[in-house]
Amino acid sequence: MPSYTPPVRDMKFLLHEVLDIAQYGDLPKFSEAPRDLADAIMDEAAKFAEGVLQPLNQVGDQKGCIRNDDGSVTTPPGFKDAFDQFTENGWPLLGAEPEFGGQGLPGILGIAVSEMMSTANTAFAMYPGLTRGAVEAILAGGTDEQKQKYLPKMTSCEWGGTMNLTEPHCGTDLGLLKTKAVPQADGSYKITGQKIFISSGEHDLTDNIIHMVIARIEGAPAGTKGISLFIVPKIMVGDDGALGERNGVSCGSIEHKMGIHGNSTCTMNFDDATGFLIGEENKGLRLMFVMMNAARLGTGMQGLCQSEASYQNAVTYAKERIQGRSLTGPKNPDGPADPIIVHPDVRRMLLEHKSVTEGCRAFLYWTALHGDLEDLSPDEKVREKAGDYMALLTPVIKAYLTDRGYHNATNAQQVYGGHGYIEEWGMSQFVRDARIGMIYEGANGVQALDLVGRKLAMHGGRPIMTFIGELDTFIAENDGNDDLKPFIDGLRTSRERLNTAVTWLMENSLSNFDNAGAGSHDFLHLFALTALSYMWAKMAKVALDKKDEEPFYTAKLKTGAFFLSHVLPQSATHLARVEAGAQNLMAMEASEF
Amino acid sequence: MPSYTPPVRDMKFLLHEVLDIAQYGDLPKFSEAPRDLADAIMDEAAKFAEGVLQPLNQVGDQKGCIRNDDGSVTTPPGFKDAFDQFTENGWPLLGAEPEFGGQGLPGILGIAVSEMMSTANTAFAMYPGLTRGAVEAILAGGTDEQKQKYLPKMTSCEWGGTMNLTEPHCGTDLGLLKTKAVPQADGSYKITGQKIFISSGEHDLTDNIIHMVIARIEGAPAGTKGISLFIVPKIMVGDDGALGERNGVSCGSIEHKMGIHGNSTCTMNFDDATGFLIGEENKGLRLMFVMMNAARLGTGMQGLCQSEASYQNAVTYAKERIQGRSLTGPKNPDGPADPIIVHPDVRRMLLEHKSVTEGCRAFLYWTALHGDLEDLSPDEKVREKAGDYMALLTPVIKAYLTDRGYHNATNAQQVYGGHGYIEEWGMSQFVRDARIGMIYEGANGVQALDLVGRKLAMHGGRPIMTFIGELDTFIAENDGNDDLKPFIDGLRTSRERLNTAVTWLMENSLSNFDNAGAGSHDFLHLFALTALSYMWAKMAKVALDKKDEEPFYTAKLKTGAFFLSHVLPQSATHLARVEAGAQNLMAMEASEF
Repeated sequence: MPSYTPPVRDMKFLLHEVLDIAQYGDLPKFSEAPRDLADAIMDEAAKFAEGVLQPLNQVGDQKGCIRNDDGSVTTPPGFKDAFDQFTENGWPLLGAEPEFGGQGLPGILGIAVSEMMSTANTAFAMYPGLTRGAVEAILAGGTDEQKQKYLPKMTSCEWGGTMNLTEPHCGTDLGLLKTKAVPQADGSYKITGQKIFISSGEHDLTDNIIHMVIARIEGAPAGTKGISLFIVPKIMVGDDGALGERNGVSCGSIEHKMGIHGNSTCTMNFDDATGFLIGEENKGLRLMFVMMNAARLGTGMQGLCQSEASYQNAVTYAKERIQGRSLTGPKNPDGPADPIIVHPDVRRMLLEHKSVTEGCRAFLYWTALHGDLEDLSPDEKVREKAGDYMALLTPVIKAYLTDRGYHNATNAQQVYGGHGYIEEWGMSQFVRDARIGMIYEGANGVQALDLVGRKLAMHGGRPIMTFIGELDTFIAENDGNDDLKPFIDGLRTSRERLNTAVTWLMENSLSNFDNAGAGSHDFLHLFALTALSYMWAKMAKVALDKKDEEPFYTAKLKTGAFFLSHVLPQSATHLARVEAGAQNLMAMEASEF
Repeated sequence: MPSYTPPVRDMKFLLHEVLDIAQYGDLPKFSEAPRDLADAIMDEAAKFAEGVLQPLNQVGDQKGCIRNDDGSVTTPPGFKDAFDQFTENGWPLLGAEPEFGGQGLPGILGIAVSEMMSTANTAFAMYPGLTRGAVEAILAGGTDEQKQKYLPKMTSCEWGGTMNLTEPHCGTDLGLLKTKAVPQADGSYKITGQKIFISSGEHDLTDNIIHMVIARIEGAPAGTKGISLFIVPKIMVGDDGALGERNGVSCGSIEHKMGIHGNSTCTMNFDDATGFLIGEENKGLRLMFVMMNAARLGTGMQGLCQSEASYQNAVTYAKERIQGRSLTGPKNPDGPADPIIVHPDVRRMLLEHKSVTEGCRAFLYWTALHGDLEDLSPDEKVREKAGDYMALLTPVIKAYLTDRGYHNATNAQQVYGGHGYIEEWGMSQFVRDARIGMIYEGANGVQALDLVGRKLAMHGGRPIMTFIGELDTFIAENDGNDDLKPFIDGLRTSRERLNTAVTWLMENSLSNFDNAGAGSHDFLHLFALTALSYMWAKMAKVALDKKDEEPFYTAKLKTGAFFLSHVLPQSATHLARVEAGAQNLMAMEASEF
């Protein structure tokens, strides 16, 4: 049976030592979360994640969700009880808005808590996760009346929320959608159509579910310019907030997925369902992206979660499994064999896993901090930079963390040998659960295209130039630090490769957009490796100062050294592939594939 | 529903044009397989694979194997009928020994046929595949009496065969095994113990199953020096060949696996089962390796198979799925969107997939040809070189082809977007089925260690030096060929990197064996990329000569060009990681992970 111990020490290291969030103590939200409170919250979240959610993770995979004959959906055994504890303990309220009952704590603290919940049980954490996405859309576009009607119950997760975008024939290209909305005399709309892949679409965890649905109002323009967003409650809500009639929306089936079986991914049928326009007519896609952008950071986090969960179990197994002897002589001479952690190739997999996971956690938290600063800083320049970074980094976080989550989980499974392939051991689930992160919330290829096609050129290239400038400043500031030199050298190498790639794309994409598309995947990975080099340099700087205080810091430095020698070299290949351009990709006729 | 059309054109290209097997027409076996017969066999195999086996692939995954209360196992619906056709058509006999009823055709032709069967339905093809492994062990170590008793029925697959190695506490390190064999007065042994992960361990396809079981004879030395191999029939066989009593071996359970559900992977219980020693006492491991080595090429082939199957479906989907517009303007202006094959990033995935798959097929067939030459050539030097190559290349084929099979299947699944995650579309099965290849028959880390730890140093380095010498000869012979220049340049780069890595390992491994272990995975991939560069140069040479004859050749050249620009650069990263050595891997204390 797999286990999970939340890495609270690493989280506190990031929040307090690397990012030093105390420096923002006079900002709203941060002022509500002094260090002792933040630590207490993380400690409690760790207990809940480990004690309540993790034991249900494998149950969720094995039992899955069941659609009953009446269209209702039963979640896996134990999920309802755990969800009740989750809401009663107030976990959904942590980062939420005080005016709707939330606690209003900083987003970065919410990320740490979410990471623990989602690592313990991703399928479970998706129910409140999707609800939060729907809350964001209503916050961004809803009328005061809509906010008052829905947000208090959704903020507390008494009601659930969903996002209904995909249809059988369209996902990425939502302009093709067919679901239609017919205006009614009372100002509402009748929604008709079918949506697929709807996470948490129907379930027994909450009294009501508020579906956010995109549809085309009759007569609206074709394509993406005719898409509107609607609130479609599962059960109608009276002006007094009381639940009324059942609306015309139902779960047609539960998808048979490779993983995340504990989450009910549904085909949803809308049959003259009553919907309420949110935001302006035909401007629905913009609101949808508010939701999506928040969800993309969360999806990136899921990659980190599967990476962390699978790492912990692989390390335990590698220390316990006795098999073969060290190449340099027995390390467990009194036993029949050595633990497999003595083998260099097992260590290669574990250290790649560890160094990338810890780098990704730093990258995610650092990015999330910019999300807080964008909202809260009184300094316009800070807000501008933070906004630039959120735009620039979100696709990188989403795609790189999920790519690596899957790759790392696969390596962790490999450490188990044959047992890794057997479901009872739990490693297969980590791989299967990790797989979806690369696909949903915009497939990773779409993220890469967003990065090179939109984000690089945004504001005349200001975000990427600001980012490279920040690296230069850090390099200059730490150039005399001999102990830090390997990390600064690594960062300098990364920075040069990134800059070369940016220049190449700028010079070659305008004449041929396919050059941007062709290099997008590799550019995104090169960018991420550069960001991780920066994170490792920042972490190493703190760890060097404290390396005699606690073994945690020496482990951090050794892990970072492995990152430099074994992970960073990958960026050379990514650069070569960016510079190879589109020619050999586009030369093939479709018939020649 | 996924489909499969065997790539017979590519197979004929390799056999007749690239490898020119007609040049061996005066060797035994080859003389029995003139081109028209070989082609007819491949055409028929393609029909059987596509028409009979492929339609059962998804059924096998979804229904799996069922263990009944009496310990018998029922294979998925349709498997028994297909197996009867498979044996009635004589497919198992193709490469088998004429003295036991086989047709005695060349191994390379057998590989082509096996590839089709296994691509159509890997779980199905494992039943005859394991039987063949057992046949090889009896051929290598059995007495004449044992051969006469078992081989005719096993060659035809009237009876099945299995390999019983792994126990719950040992897989890679078989020296730890506990299954015991107690000598009996009549010369037989009583075998008692439990084996796990036994592919095709029990099923309803054949009248009998001949288990090859390793065990320790009472009083034998500890470790690998006390392991003997036994024949343990499921049903005892009389001297007249008639089936007798049921033996004391039974299926305790079927493993719950991530994939290959159509194959019954069993826990096997031996309870005073009657077994017959094969080969010498305590020399069982050597015989087991005969079986294993054959199986390792077959396992590598499975990686190729999942790669081919998933590629074909991804291409079909990419041509049919209409979503978004080309970056350079609509390519399907009359439709609502363009097929996704217009997108460079989709092409990146498909071309990486295609160029690696075709390169791996050439690498596998070229290696298999050396297997034939090792057996059949009258020239001692040719046999020596072929034997060297089989030893050197087998771990590379096993590990690289399965690593890439999984990676490629994952990319193919990615092309499907959300549909890739839904089981009905079949892409998840390719990934899940591909995953086991990296684990079984010696995990890929064990293959890498075999390569650097044993095969490089073998015969004073003769195999690797012969290989590099062959590359040098090819480069020298083709140096003036302007059309071929990019391929020769790519090969030269690969050759230099390989040689640098070999030199580094030679200089740094003797002083510290961990340096060999630390670089083993990357060295293996670097080696494979060099082999693929050679294969692509050989294929391009043929295709250049014929490029005006058939679109097949221009597609081949374009695919090869992509390999050079986008796949080959990976070897630089692998070299850097080899040269990084063991220091940063071994510095970590176990407690620091």
